[in-house]
Amino acid sequence: MHASPATLTGVNADFTFDRATRVEETARGAWRAEVSPRWNIYGVPNGGYLATVGLAGAARLVPHPDLLSATAYYPSRTEPGDVLIRAETLRIGKRVSTAVARVEQEGEPRIEITAMYTDLDLAQGPTHVPSAPPSIPPPDQCVKGEGPIAADFLQNFDLRVTPGTAGWASGRPSGQAEMSGWVRFADGRNADPASLPLFADSFPPAVFNLVPPSWTPTLELTVHVRGRPSPGWLQVRFTTRYLQKGFLEEDGEIWDETGTLVALSRQLGQIRM
Amino acid sequence: MHASPATLTGVNADFTFDRATRVEETARGAWRAEVSPRWNIYGVPNGGYLATVGLAGAARLVPHPDLLSATAYYPSRTEPGDVLIRAETLRIGKRVSTAVARVEQEGEPRIEITAMYTDLDLAQGPTHVPSAPPSIPPPDQCVKGEGPIAADFLQNFDLRVTPGTAGWASGRPSGQAEMSGWVRFADGRNADPASLPLFADSFPPAVFNLVPPSWTPTLELTVHVRGRPSPGWLQVRFTTRYLQKGFLEEDGEIWDETGTLVALSRQLGQIRM
Repeated sequence: MHASPATLTGVNADFTFDRATRVEETARGAWRAEVSPRWNIYGVPNGGYLATVGLAGAARLVPHPDLLSATAYYPSRTEPGDVLIRAETLRIGKRVSTAVARVEQEGEPRIEITAMYTDLDLAQGPTHVPSAPPSIPPPDQCVKGEGPIAADFLQNFDLRVTPGTAGWASGRPSGQAEMSGWVRFADGRNADPASLPLFADSFPPAVFNLVPPSWTPTLELTVHVRGRPSPGWLQVRFTTRYLQKGFLEEDGEIWDETGTLVALSRQLGQIRM
Repeated sequence: MHASPATLTGVNADFTFDRATRVEETARGAWRAEVSPRWNIYGVPNGGYLATVGLAGAARLVPHPDLLSATAYYPSRTEPGDVLIRAETLRIGKRVSTAVARVEQEGEPRIEITAMYTDLDLAQGPTHVPSAPPSIPPPDQCVKGEGPIAADFLQNFDLRVTPGTAGWASGRPSGQAEMSGWVRFADGRNADPASLPLFADSFPPAVFNLVPPSWTPTLELTVHVRGRPSPGWLQVRFTTRYLQKGFLEEDGEIWDETGTLVALSRQLGQIRM
């Protein structure tokens, strides 16, 4: 039960994501990490990526192999470069373990993360999923995610946006705050519970199909992992229903290639103009 | 800006909720509180109520009057009785402040809370809300929430469940994991941002209309406050879409009596059989 997460998930440290979330223990419960500029959007590291950096510390303290739930609050902006992660366990339970991790930079708290871990193989109980994933065009009929603003970030992914939700990028927003499509790592690494918080924040804000694109920082992000993804594409849908005085929620659903829901996400964001 | 939340929200300490979330400072950043058995369900304090107890500590450290977002993780069960709350601020910002609070009992962490506060009066930005609250029967045509299992808890509320979603209680579950209705405090206290996490956990699990009622503890609860409620009833809708091997999300929407959305909530729960 105490093997490292890398061993448990068969991760190959040659992959970009694993290099970008590598942590080096400096003391008991403390790790140094390097926030890579490769995951920048508008010159700022992506919030989902930052959460996975902090989680890499927390995961090393718990015996359970699978991330079950992670919540990140972002009190201030993290820059690419050195960070210190301090983590502690709140409880090591039989079924679920809980840990907190704080990401510090220049001596200040930048991200506060709480997370639960479990062994998804041992989950048992009733299952009732009312609907299949929404039917969308296959990846080769979608629009490849690319462009100067998020060029650093997007190079890590093979990301395809459905024609119906890609219009905002060419000045033709759909008028519906939805963004759907497919995504996988560009280097062939498979998605796993540890990387799902990154995928949950990998698409442009759904609200860009409703209002002109502007700086929309994440204030809070929670991801519930509901299954281990099968190898291959992830199908995603992000929607915003309530935009109120600049505050908005963005809800995400992530299915694996077999059509199983593997994560639900929600973030609180704020449009800053 | 540094007036106490009680002053800021005009709370009257004669109300049950305010008595049940009273905290007494014992040291800088530490408060003693008494978890009241009046909010028990199945003999265990309600998770939303417990979150508001911890938040009562955090709120005292920040200058902003309104809870904006709160996330609670529940690593182990809290019993009615004495608890210690330890809180600290992560950042006091101009627009938003962030704090963490840990609720301890018998020397162990029981609840970990992260929260952001703001001044909702100062929020500005675009608004787009695509739909009105769902049309449901008025309170006097709904089913009053009462019953032996949650009798302690329900005495604090005037809680009405729509006839279409109340069937589970009489052995006629609707087959749809939805629970809708109206709720307000029984003693006339008005809802406010500080009490919305409690209202977000005030209805029976929506999944009881899908599977036989059983112990469904909350693992994680996040509430986004989107507005200050007007006086009067809150209209609520709780839904579960994905029940997988016992794990489920429950999404909540809370509108005030004027039809404004004032909170979104989501919790991760697990059916334990």
